[in-house]
Amino acid sequence: MVKNINYGYKTEVNLSYSDAINKVKELLKKDGFGIITEIDVKNTLKNKLNVDYDNYIILGACNPSFAFKALKIERDIGLILPCNVLVYEEQGKTFVVTIKPTFSIGLINKEKLKYLAEDVENKLKNVIDTLKEEKNGI
Amino acid sequence: MVKNINYGYKTEVNLSYSDAINKVKELLKKDGFGIITEIDVKNTLKNKLNVDYDNYIILGACNPSFAFKALKIERDIGLILPCNVLVYEEQGKTFVVTIKPTFSIGLINKEKLKYLAEDVENKLKNVIDTLKEEKNGI
Repeated sequence: MVKNINYGYKTEVNLSYSDAINKVKELLKKDGFGIITEIDVKNTLKNKLNVDYDNYIILGACNPSFAFKALKIERDIGLILPCNVLVYEEQGKTFVVTIKPTFSIGLINKEKLKYLAEDVENKLKNVIDTLKEEKNGI
Repeated sequence: MVKNINYGYKTEVNLSYSDAINKVKELLKKDGFGIITEIDVKNTLKNKLNVDYDNYIILGACNPSFAFKALKIERDIGLILPCNVLVYEEQGKTFVVTIKPTFSIGLINKEKLKYLAEDVENKLKNVIDTLKEEKNGI
């Protein structure tokens, strides 16, 4: 059972960690998102703190057209860009999680941004829904 | 006059764009933050959409000890990491803006995370305060 969170969409996947990363990148690309940052959390924690942690990557997904529109509405929107997508392992299972842009943009309180965030959120939700369907063999 | 935003700390600086980037990195380093991502927004928009935009960079600042503590409290916190710091030009002026972690973490609604976010926020606010003081020749 996946523990839901209020600020993201989350699913378990029947894929290895590295296969899940490739699959997520492929699905995001289909939806117009490029990956502009990758943070390997496990390696970073090992290198900086010498602690062992599970496989965990933060992918920074960006749809340039949406980003440009958002910047024209709100100059400082870069503070909450790109849209993060996580792939990680926990107790032998692999999970994929995306941010809900309406969550992060909600507090900025600009109507035009809200519509844009909803569009981006639908695309990210698509990715999770596709992964859920594949997991359930639909 | 700097237009304040509710989700970040912002200041104008009397520095060129590239000097401001170096200065911000130096101040963040002093406060225990490494830069783990850099998104050159101007170049990205030029390459992907062939549009011209001002100099604008998103620096992803991370204090590994704080990040590790946060991950232990909330596995999916990676959705809102790292802490973004912007340096950009607008109408010939250079601005530095940092996220307010209490803003982004606020909606997760976990007391322990709130304290952590306040610690990180104070460090980021220090950076902006130092830049403000230097601008005003204090």
